[in-house]
Amino acid sequence: MKKYSFYIAGGDLRSAYLAAALAEGKNKVAAFGLSGADEILKGVFKSESLSDAAGFDAAVLPLPCCDGEGYIKTPLSDKKVKLEELINSLEHGSVLMGGFVPDWVYKLAEKRQIAVYDYYEREEFAVRNAALTAEAAVALAMELLTETISDMPVLVLGHGRIGRLLASILKALDAKVTVAARRFSDLAWIRSEGLVPIEFMRLKEHISEFGVIFNTVPAMVLDGELLSMTDKKAVIIDLASEPCGTDFAAAERLGLKVRKAPGLPGKFAPKTAGEIIKDTVLNILSEREEDSCG
Amino acid sequence: MKKYSFYIAGGDLRSAYLAAALAEGKNKVAAFGLSGADEILKGVFKSESLSDAAGFDAAVLPLPCCDGEGYIKTPLSDKKVKLEELINSLEHGSVLMGGFVPDWVYKLAEKRQIAVYDYYEREEFAVRNAALTAEAAVALAMELLTETISDMPVLVLGHGRIGRLLASILKALDAKVTVAARRFSDLAWIRSEGLVPIEFMRLKEHISEFGVIFNTVPAMVLDGELLSMTDKKAVIIDLASEPCGTDFAAAERLGLKVRKAPGLPGKFAPKTAGEIIKDTVLNILSEREEDSCG
Amino acid sequence: MKKYSFYIAGGDLRSAYLAAALAEGKNKVAAFGLSGADEILKGVFKSESLSDAAGFDAAVLPLPCCDGEGYIKTPLSDKKVKLEELINSLEHGSVLMGGFVPDWVYKLAEKRQIAVYDYYEREEFAVRNAALTAEAAVALAMELLTETISDMPVLVLGHGRIGRLLASILKALDAKVTVAARRFSDLAWIRSEGLVPIEFMRLKEHISEFGVIFNTVPAMVLDGELLSMTDKKAVIIDLASEPCGTDFAAAERLGLKVRKAPGLPGKFAPKTAGEIIKDTVLNILSEREEDSCG
Amino acid sequence: MKKYSFYIAGGDLRSAYLAAALAEGKNKVAAFGLSGADEILKGVFKSESLSDAAGFDAAVLPLPCCDGEGYIKTPLSDKKVKLEELINSLEHGSVLMGGFVPDWVYKLAEKRQIAVYDYYEREEFAVRNAALTAEAAVALAMELLTETISDMPVLVLGHGRIGRLLASILKALDAKVTVAARRFSDLAWIRSEGLVPIEFMRLKEHISEFGVIFNTVPAMVLDGELLSMTDKKAVIIDLASEPCGTDFAAAERLGLKVRKAPGLPGKFAPKTAGEIIKDTVLNILSEREEDSCG
Repeated sequence: MKKYSFYIAGGDLRSAYLAAALAEGKNKVAAFGLSGADEILKGVFKSESLSDAAGFDAAVLPLPCCDGEGYIKTPLSDKKVKLEELINSLEHGSVLMGGFVPDWVYKLAEKRQIAVYDYYEREEFAVRNAALTAEAAVALAMELLTETISDMPVLVLGHGRIGRLLASILKALDAKVTVAARRFSDLAWIRSEGLVPIEFMRLKEHISEFGVIFNTVPAMVLDGELLSMTDKKAVIIDLASEPCGTDFAAAERLGLKVRKAPGLPGKFAPKTAGEIIKDTVLNILSEREEDSCG
Repeated sequence: MKKYSFYIAGGDLRSAYLAAALAEGKNKVAAFGLSGADEILKGVFKSESLSDAAGFDAAVLPLPCCDGEGYIKTPLSDKKVKLEELINSLEHGSVLMGGFVPDWVYKLAEKRQIAVYDYYEREEFAVRNAALTAEAAVALAMELLTETISDMPVLVLGHGRIGRLLASILKALDAKVTVAARRFSDLAWIRSEGLVPIEFMRLKEHISEFGVIFNTVPAMVLDGELLSMTDKKAVIIDLASEPCGTDFAAAERLGLKVRKAPGLPGKFAPKTAGEIIKDTVLNILSEREEDSCG
Repeated sequence: MKKYSFYIAGGDLRSAYLAAALAEGKNKVAAFGLSGADEILKGVFKSESLSDAAGFDAAVLPLPCCDGEGYIKTPLSDKKVKLEELINSLEHGSVLMGGFVPDWVYKLAEKRQIAVYDYYEREEFAVRNAALTAEAAVALAMELLTETISDMPVLVLGHGRIGRLLASILKALDAKVTVAARRFSDLAWIRSEGLVPIEFMRLKEHISEFGVIFNTVPAMVLDGELLSMTDKKAVIIDLASEPCGTDFAAAERLGLKVRKAPGLPGKFAPKTAGEIIKDTVLNILSEREEDSCG
Repeated sequence: MKKYSFYIAGGDLRSAYLAAALAEGKNKVAAFGLSGADEILKGVFKSESLSDAAGFDAAVLPLPCCDGEGYIKTPLSDKKVKLEELINSLEHGSVLMGGFVPDWVYKLAEKRQIAVYDYYEREEFAVRNAALTAEAAVALAMELLTETISDMPVLVLGHGRIGRLLASILKALDAKVTVAARRFSDLAWIRSEGLVPIEFMRLKEHISEFGVIFNTVPAMVLDGELLSMTDKKAVIIDLASEPCGTDFAAAERLGLKVRKAPGLPGKFAPKTAGEIIKDTVLNILSEREEDSCG
């Protein structure tokens, strides 16, 4: 496999593990703004200034890449730098990769002939990130419960990436898994995966039976009415992206144990999360290579 | 659930089980051309003439619904009737459902204000039929092998519906499963499902390691070159629709054990196959109901 | 099922859930020394004095039932009472059950014609407690790791109850599981369960490959030599009863992440643990019934 | 691993695969009475007379090793030879191994200072043979059924080796598995394995619900009364050794689909069966080695 030079700018533990994994794979790696994770950065050059980015094949930003004011996210360091500064340090023809990349970054980079890629939008990233999220969600449920997952009646709302992978883990742990979906084809998949399918509109009849409820649908699903029918001892974990799918205010009023779980992958298994970014970033570069050959 | 009257015309054991399952569900059912499966047809009126179809809510044809000359498939009877005759017997406003329905049927039926649906094109039918096919393929492999599936290095070509469900069964049986796919996102799914992914272009390096090879890709995948590298004792099962994905002539020359497996679901588990058609047919009618209410 | 009256004396959250579960099953239940878990004790009479125990069919002690000086374990209360006092309160013909019951209890009770049973010694208790321990151990590993369990090379030392159930959960989570055992028959079981068997004497060659190591053998297995060959980033969880199977001093010297995990079931899932005690206690009484009938 | 010379005398395809596997493992191998499986015997010397056995480290007989009159079982050849003749051909200090070895063989061999071992009595053989039997039983059920195993309510009678492994495969295939056992500890295991336990004495209430019933208990379990309550379309597979556990006469009267399945491993997967014998035979020799060193 071809080797590259990478400049990792900012980020949390995931970025540190990303840097270390790239270095272990014999790529040349420098890292900026990761001083809080020094012991992880084996074989990685510690950069003190974004101007070092010049000459690198690619710069990699965290997920999300910057805050609303254009500063690179640097939770592991007290350095505060503008993403614009990094773009200006990169050379023509180099590559900039990050997660949730805003439009202005594409425009700015284009002017300097720097190619920009959002790894968060890649399907292979999404799938493996979903697998990580699913395992993290199960671990969180185990922590919150006073019973075992094994034998527990569990409801998964939604049968997208996370829903599917989550249901599969729960089944493997011998939970009694029901999955709610809307389309006939999803209900057929759920059944073919050895799980119990339920249509969303029939949730009311059964919601009270579940000890854990995972939501993966990014739309109001667990509204006040459904929550009021839920077992008072049930644990609810909402994995959907904002604005999530749970009426949190109603849940609080009802005294339910609810957890919003955004950013779970980064906290639960930052090393695996970093490796997923690494693989995606390498896929992006390998596809560029192929395109330019073709 | 609303009850309907069904006229089942022709078909193999699947159609007989379909008729019995609909009757068991308190629908009114008549069957034509299924005399060879009489003992299955409990509670089903045996029709001797297509003219009986008048007055039924829906007629259901087999999969495929007719032969090249327009005759309804009736392998369980010596009756030979034209599909056109059935259409002419049905009343305006009734529904005709079948598998692989050719264009001329839609046109003919439209003239008589009969709605036509191809259940084979429904996603929920395809998923559950794929699950059935996957189990049947595993049973066939067990029959052909002199070793257990457990511990066996197995290759699945393709990660569509059948590929995914097949790999999942094989893994559950403790086979060592590798799945070949082309796209990064499929390779990520395969990995997240706990299986070993391999890119098609790297098959040459590993093809010799497998004791069973299942193809699900409907394009020439197992060509002469790959087959020549395959273990001489390997079992090859091609599940793809015609023209399949194996160079059968080359396989024969090489003395390989190859099986084409079309129509597997109907032979392996006709009762389950009939129930899948039943569920799909009822879904179609329930959607019509909703649409006309809306 | 026959109903009984139970006097629950002392214990942690498990005893509280035990009391609640017995009460939910329509048995008459009183609890002493569980005031810290008041909200759990629905339908349970709160006893303030052991003299209340008179007239109850059975008294149930915690696991372990008492400390070295003969006091009942009462971590959820500031009451401090002697087990002897309870025995004296019980009536002739009643039953006393507890975990790790010392010899002197049997002798004292016999004099008063009270039958004593140690539920911890029952095989059905041991099996389900092992299942609970196994899930708890996996949750602990997930908490300690920076990577997912899925895909992780994991070693389980020992193939007794916990070892078997633990390996089965880890496999279900798509870890790459190796199990170490000594006897040919255990190695055959391990293989038949779809896992990789390894003989203890060959551990040295492979120990460095594992990211998590679970010990279930109550004898020095992970000695200084083996530990020195272990991956420095590995997580070690020792589930064996004292004196465990890990050279903890050596592990510390080597900077390894080691966890002793005694009492895991009670902390991880006290409700399930309480239900297991409930089922065992009811089994004991139902067997007594049968014996006296026979 | 130490190499040996083996003389394989008689047997079916399992013996042929045993011979081939030993030869592939660089042992010196001769085979007698396997001419019907010539194409399998790669690298194996074809012996035409038992006198060739002289000088070999070990002779291996089939399972069972001989018929009631003392003739070696030779279904793949028209040769008919006495086991006594083989014993007389072997040299002092050599080893004789077989399955179901009768007492007179031990006595006769002892006189000539030949050590005799029954590999069928070895626990590791029994476990792996049970795993093979379990997979074969599932394949047989698939063949007999008109429905898929997936989703099917299945009953396994007994929780010994075969029962456990069979239930585990059926669960992996998404059948709905109930296992009947007598002891509280077995019922606890069944539950901890994620299966539904049922006590034998409560079978009457539920027997009618199952589409497939596997018996593994070698005692009359499925008597006339239970069979009369069984679903008429159910498939019954009796895996217990003679006299099995089903009242076959009653089953026939009731028109039930029953199959006795002795010798399943040899027919279903002779190559795997041969490899299990190979591993067991090598274990026996390796233990002898250790003992003589000690």
